[in-house]
Amino acid sequence: MLVIMRHGASDEQIQTVISFIKKKGFDTHVSHGELHTVIGAVGGKVIDPRDIELLDGVKEVIKITSSYKLASRIFQPQDTVIEVNGVKFGGEYCGVIAGPCTIESLEQMEETAKQLSQKGVKILRGGAFKPRTSPYAFQGLGEEGLKIIRDVADKYGMAVTSEVMEISQIPMFMKYVDILQVGARNMQNFNLLRELGYINKPVIIKRGLSATFEELLMAAEYVMSGGNRQIILCERGIRTFEKTTRNTLDLCAIPVIKKLSHLPIIIDPSHGTGLRDKVAPMSRAAVAAGCDGLIIEVHYDPDTALCDGAQSLYPDQFGELYSDLKKIAPIVGKKIDNEQTVEV
Amino acid sequence: MLVIMRHGASDEQIQTVISFIKKKGFDTHVSHGELHTVIGAVGGKVIDPRDIELLDGVKEVIKITSSYKLASRIFQPQDTVIEVNGVKFGGEYCGVIAGPCTIESLEQMEETAKQLSQKGVKILRGGAFKPRTSPYAFQGLGEEGLKIIRDVADKYGMAVTSEVMEISQIPMFMKYVDILQVGARNMQNFNLLRELGYINKPVIIKRGLSATFEELLMAAEYVMSGGNRQIILCERGIRTFEKTTRNTLDLCAIPVIKKLSHLPIIIDPSHGTGLRDKVAPMSRAAVAAGCDGLIIEVHYDPDTALCDGAQSLYPDQFGELYSDLKKIAPIVGKKIDNEQTVEV
Amino acid sequence: MLVIMRHGASDEQIQTVISFIKKKGFDTHVSHGELHTVIGAVGGKVIDPRDIELLDGVKEVIKITSSYKLASRIFQPQDTVIEVNGVKFGGEYCGVIAGPCTIESLEQMEETAKQLSQKGVKILRGGAFKPRTSPYAFQGLGEEGLKIIRDVADKYGMAVTSEVMEISQIPMFMKYVDILQVGARNMQNFNLLRELGYINKPVIIKRGLSATFEELLMAAEYVMSGGNRQIILCERGIRTFEKTTRNTLDLCAIPVIKKLSHLPIIIDPSHGTGLRDKVAPMSRAAVAAGCDGLIIEVHYDPDTALCDGAQSLYPDQFGELYSDLKKIAPIVGKKIDNEQTVEV
Amino acid sequence: MLVIMRHGASDEQIQTVISFIKKKGFDTHVSHGELHTVIGAVGGKVIDPRDIELLDGVKEVIKITSSYKLASRIFQPQDTVIEVNGVKFGGEYCGVIAGPCTIESLEQMEETAKQLSQKGVKILRGGAFKPRTSPYAFQGLGEEGLKIIRDVADKYGMAVTSEVMEISQIPMFMKYVDILQVGARNMQNFNLLRELGYINKPVIIKRGLSATFEELLMAAEYVMSGGNRQIILCERGIRTFEKTTRNTLDLCAIPVIKKLSHLPIIIDPSHGTGLRDKVAPMSRAAVAAGCDGLIIEVHYDPDTALCDGAQSLYPDQFGELYSDLKKIAPIVGKKIDNEQTVEV
Repeated sequence: MLVIMRHGASDEQIQTVISFIKKKGFDTHVSHGELHTVIGAVGGKVIDPRDIELLDGVKEVIKITSSYKLASRIFQPQDTVIEVNGVKFGGEYCGVIAGPCTIESLEQMEETAKQLSQKGVKILRGGAFKPRTSPYAFQGLGEEGLKIIRDVADKYGMAVTSEVMEISQIPMFMKYVDILQVGARNMQNFNLLRELGYINKPVIIKRGLSATFEELLMAAEYVMSGGNRQIILCERGIRTFEKTTRNTLDLCAIPVIKKLSHLPIIIDPSHGTGLRDKVAPMSRAAVAAGCDGLIIEVHYDPDTALCDGAQSLYPDQFGELYSDLKKIAPIVGKKIDNEQTVEV
Repeated sequence: MLVIMRHGASDEQIQTVISFIKKKGFDTHVSHGELHTVIGAVGGKVIDPRDIELLDGVKEVIKITSSYKLASRIFQPQDTVIEVNGVKFGGEYCGVIAGPCTIESLEQMEETAKQLSQKGVKILRGGAFKPRTSPYAFQGLGEEGLKIIRDVADKYGMAVTSEVMEISQIPMFMKYVDILQVGARNMQNFNLLRELGYINKPVIIKRGLSATFEELLMAAEYVMSGGNRQIILCERGIRTFEKTTRNTLDLCAIPVIKKLSHLPIIIDPSHGTGLRDKVAPMSRAAVAAGCDGLIIEVHYDPDTALCDGAQSLYPDQFGELYSDLKKIAPIVGKKIDNEQTVEV
Repeated sequence: MLVIMRHGASDEQIQTVISFIKKKGFDTHVSHGELHTVIGAVGGKVIDPRDIELLDGVKEVIKITSSYKLASRIFQPQDTVIEVNGVKFGGEYCGVIAGPCTIESLEQMEETAKQLSQKGVKILRGGAFKPRTSPYAFQGLGEEGLKIIRDVADKYGMAVTSEVMEISQIPMFMKYVDILQVGARNMQNFNLLRELGYINKPVIIKRGLSATFEELLMAAEYVMSGGNRQIILCERGIRTFEKTTRNTLDLCAIPVIKKLSHLPIIIDPSHGTGLRDKVAPMSRAAVAAGCDGLIIEVHYDPDTALCDGAQSLYPDQFGELYSDLKKIAPIVGKKIDNEQTVEV
Repeated sequence: MLVIMRHGASDEQIQTVISFIKKKGFDTHVSHGELHTVIGAVGGKVIDPRDIELLDGVKEVIKITSSYKLASRIFQPQDTVIEVNGVKFGGEYCGVIAGPCTIESLEQMEETAKQLSQKGVKILRGGAFKPRTSPYAFQGLGEEGLKIIRDVADKYGMAVTSEVMEISQIPMFMKYVDILQVGARNMQNFNLLRELGYINKPVIIKRGLSATFEELLMAAEYVMSGGNRQIILCERGIRTFEKTTRNTLDLCAIPVIKKLSHLPIIIDPSHGTGLRDKVAPMSRAAVAAGCDGLIIEVHYDPDTALCDGAQSLYPDQFGELYSDLKKIAPIVGKKIDNEQTVEV
C-alpha cells in the first residue's frame, strides 16, 4: 500500500499517518518526492484504504496487491484447460455449449438435443431452477427437470450443465450435472461460492450485471480457495444506460481476463443481447476475439418456449452459425469443440 | 399488452401477429390508427414481449400491467407503517437504526450501544455474517455475534437488526433478531426472498447495486407473496461510472418509491457514500426529501473497526446529526423516532 | 507519478522502465519494498501512464498530481463567493435562480417573472437557444428571446441567466445576460470553455451526463485558465441504468465538490429528475446537504409550456417550496438568497 | 401516442385526459380493454409525454413514432454505401482508416503514411485540433497540421479524415480534408451538426460516451435534415462502471444500427479500449460482427507519440491485423477495402 501525502502536508500530518499505519501492524518506508511525500506500507494485515484517506494531509491511498491470487496469471502463467466430455475450454480450445433456456418437457429436450447432437454439440444446457424476477412466473421443473436433461443427454452422448441456485441443491446437482453454473444474480452469493469450492466438478461463474472484472475474479477466488480449481468464467452482458439491447455484452472481457488470469473465459451471447438476431453476430465476434467457449440458447421451436424464446436460436440458425465459427476460429489460432477444423 | 405495428405493415403481417397472440391464449382487439395499427391483448397468461417484437411488421410491444401487485400503491393506497420497539417507519414517521458495520466483540457492542442508547436510538444494527468480496477477509463472528448483539440490545432496551445471508440461517435469526436484512448482493436471491415470506418479522430489503426500482419492488413482491407484509425498502447507492464515492446514492428513490408503493423507504447513507464526511450531509438530505427511516453506521471507535470504519460515524458526530434531523423532519411533516420533536 | 512493478519483476525490466521514464524528461527515485519495487518520477512533462503500463513487469501506474489547480481547494482554501444582483452563491450563502425552461413570449416571461419577483426571487432563468435532440423540435427564439428576458428582468429588478451554445454567440450574451450558462452537452466543448475564460461575467457550468467530478473541475479549469474566476458548478443529474427518472441526481456532488474545490456548487432538480413532483423533495434535500444554490424551472402555466412543462413547478408550488427552503437552510448554517432567514 | 389509463381510472379522469390531448391539436380514439382504457392520439404537433403522465389516472404514455426519419431503415430500406478514394463503407464493404491520434510533425506523418500505404491503407487519419480534458495539455498543430496531413496523403495517394471541433473551422476543413469527423464530446453539439448538413463531404459521427443508439441516430438526422446524406456512424465505446478498459466497446452497435438504419456503422477499437493489446482482438471481433469499417490508431513509433501512444498499434502489428481481417471478412460476406479478398 502506498499513501501519497498532499503537496504541503506538514511533518506532523506525515507522522500521524505513519503512526496510524504502524499501529495496524505494517512496516513503513518514507520517500520524499519533489511535490509529494509517499509512505509505503508492507507486511501488515487487513486495512481499509479509506481509513487512511480520511486522515489530514492525505491525498490518495493506493492498494498494490491484487485481492485474487489463485485466479491470477501471476500465480499460474499457463492457461487452465478444462475438459468435459471431450470438449476443451481454454488454451487453444473453444468449447460450445447449447440448449434451451429452460427444461420444459421430455419432448422439448429430446427434440432439441437430437438436433444439436447431430450438428456435433457435446454439452447440453437447460435450466431446472429458474431465477425469475416475478414470483408469479414459471420457476422451472426442479429435480424432475434435471432427470429429464440427464436422460436425454445420456441418450445422445452429451454432457450436462445447469444453474444451481442455493447450497442445499448442490448434492442433487452432483447427481445429474457435469458442469454447475452460478448465475449472474448469485455471483456474489459468497456462501454458495464457498461450498462449490469443495466439489470436484467444473463450475461456470457468470459475471454479475454490475460486477467488475476484479469482482468476477474474486468470485472465482472464493471457489478456488476451497480447493476446486476447475472454474470457467462467463461474460453475459452488463447493465448500462443503453436499453435497446437487454444488456451490453462486453466482449473486451476476453483479452482483459486472458491477461489477468489463466482461467478460461466464455461468452453467453443469448443473455448478453436478449434478441435472437443479435446472437449470431456476437457469437462470431466472440470467437474472433479469441474466447475459450460459447454458451448459446437453442430451442427446437423457440415460438413455443416458456422462457427467453426471443433470444433462442432455431436449430438451423445454430447450424449455420456453428459452421461459421469453425471457419473463424483457426484464424485466431483456436479450435472449436476440439475438432479438426478447416484450415485457411 | 399492446402491439404497435409499423407504419405500412401489411394485412398479412397483422393477421400473423393476431394468430400468434391468440395461440398464446389472449383475446385481441384491433384499432386502426392513422399511422399505426395497434393490437391490444388481454386475458392470456405469460408471454415474452420480445417474441412478438421479432415478428415481421411489429414496431414495438408494450406491457401495461406492472409485475408487482401487493407492493403497489394501487393495491393499497394508504402507507404501510411498521413498528419495532416503539419506533415507526412509514407514514408520518421516520425511524433511525444505528450501530457498527460488524459485531466485533462484546466490548465494542456494549460501548457503542450504550452511547447510542443515551442519545435515544432504539434499534441497533450489526453484522454477524459478512458478505466480503475477498474469501480471505474477516467473515463475521456468526451465531456468537448474534448472541452478543442480542444481549447488549436487551441490556439497553433496544431492538436488533442484522443481515441474513442464506435460507439455513433463518431459524437462527428468528431467535436473536427483530428485523432481518437482505443485503444488496442478495436482492435477487429469490429462494431466500421466498422463504422470508413465511416468517412474521419485518424484513429490510436493500436495493441491489444495479437494480431498478421495479426490480426492488419485485423483490418485495416475492416476500409479500408468501404472506409477510412487513417489508421496509432501503436505498443504499447504485453503481455508476462515478468512482469518487463508493456508490451513487439515489435519493430520488424516496419520492419515486412513495408514489409507486405503500411500503416504507429508508436510506443507508453509510454504504451509499462510503466516506464518513459524506454521511451527515446525505442523512440530512434524505430526511428533507421525506424518507421513512435511516440506517447509519456508528462505531464507538471507528479507527479500530474491523470493517468499514471509514464510513462509520463517531458517536458524537452521530449525536449532532441526530439533533439536526429532528429539526429538519417537522419541516417536511415527519417525526424522527416517533418522539415529540422540536416544532419550528 | 509512481510506477509499481509486479512482484518478481526482473532487474532488467526495472531498468527498462527507468530508462523509458528518464527519456521522457523525468527524474526517478527507486524504492525497493518487500513485495514490489516502486519507481517515483518527478519533474518531467506530459506522459501517458498507459505507455508505461504496457512495459513488461509493470503492475500499475499512479498519477499523483491532480489535473486541476486553479479550481482546487488546495490552491485556494477559502470558499469563492459569487454575487449577482445582491444574491450570493458560496460560503454561507445559497442563491436561488428560477424561471421557465424556454423563453416563449413576452407575456409568458412577464407573467412568470412577476410572480417569481413577488416571492423574492432575484435571478431569472430562461433559454433563448435550446439544444434539442430532434432537429424538428422548437429551437428557441434566439436573440429576440434574450431581449424579452432582459426587458422583463429589468422591469422587476432581476438579473438574467441563459445558456450560450457556441462561441459566436458570446458577444450577444454579454449584452443581455448577467450569468452565462454552459449546458451539460457542452461541458466538454473546450473551445467554448476557453473563450468564456476571457469574459468578466459569472459562468455556470453544468455537469455532463456522464462526466466525472474531476472532469467537471477540469471544465472549470479551462475557463479559469483564461482569467475568469467566477465559476459556479451545477449538478443536474447523470445518466445511469435507472430510467424511472430522467436522470439520477447525484446530491453527493455537494460534499464531494466542496471538499475538492472552493467553487460554489448548485443543484438543478428540474433536469435532475425530469418530473414536477420530484422537484420539491430534491430541492429540500439539496439545501439540507448544504448546496450553494438552486436553479429551478417555474412556469406561470406549465400545461402550456413549449418545452419541459412536465418538470416545471407552478408558481404556487414554488412559493411553498421557497418557504420550506428558508426553514431548512439555517439548520445547516446557510442563508437563502442572502436574506434574513427564519431562525429555528 | 398511446395513453394507458390505470386500472380503475374514473370516467372523469379519462375525459380530462382526452380534453387535454385535444387541446394540443390531436385527434383521439378510445379503446376500452378489460383492465385498462387506452387512448390513442394522432395528428397533433409536439407534445411532451410527461405532461400527460402527470394527469390523474394515467398509468403510462407511449410514443410510437421514432424521432428520426431520414436516418431510418424504414425511410430507406437499402444500405447507404459511401465511397472515398475507392474505399467503400456499407453494404458488402468494410473500409479501413488508419493513422496516428495526433498530427505531430511532417516526419511522423510521412513515416506513418508510408508504412500504412505500403500495406494497402487508402484513408489516413490524424488530429489537428485535439479535444483535451486539460487546458494545459497539447492541443494540436491546428491548420499547420491539416496542411501536413494533406501533403503527406497526396504523396501516397491517400484520402484524409480529421476531427472538426467548431463551426468556424468548417471552411478550413473543406480545404484539406475528405471526411470530417465529429468527436464523441461534440455528438450533441447541435449547432455544429446543423452546419455540417450544408457541406458535400462525408461526415463520421462518433457516439457520445453516454449517448443511446437513438440519440446517435438523431445526431445523424440533424446533419441529414440539412441535405448532407453521407453519414458514417462510429461506435467508440461508452462509459460504464467498468474501469479496467478506458471505455466499454459496445459491438452490438453493429447489428442494432444495421437493423434500425441504412447508414454505415464503423468501429473505433483504439478509443473503445484504450490499450494497444486490446485493439487487435476487438478489431477482429468487429469485422466478424459485420461492421462497415474500422478506424484504427497506428503510429510509426508509439513510444514517442504525444498523445494516446498507449492505444496506437505499431505498423507491423497493424499489418498482421489487416491480414487477419481480410480472412475474417468474407466469412460474413464482406470485403475489406473493396479488394479482392482471400476466399476460405
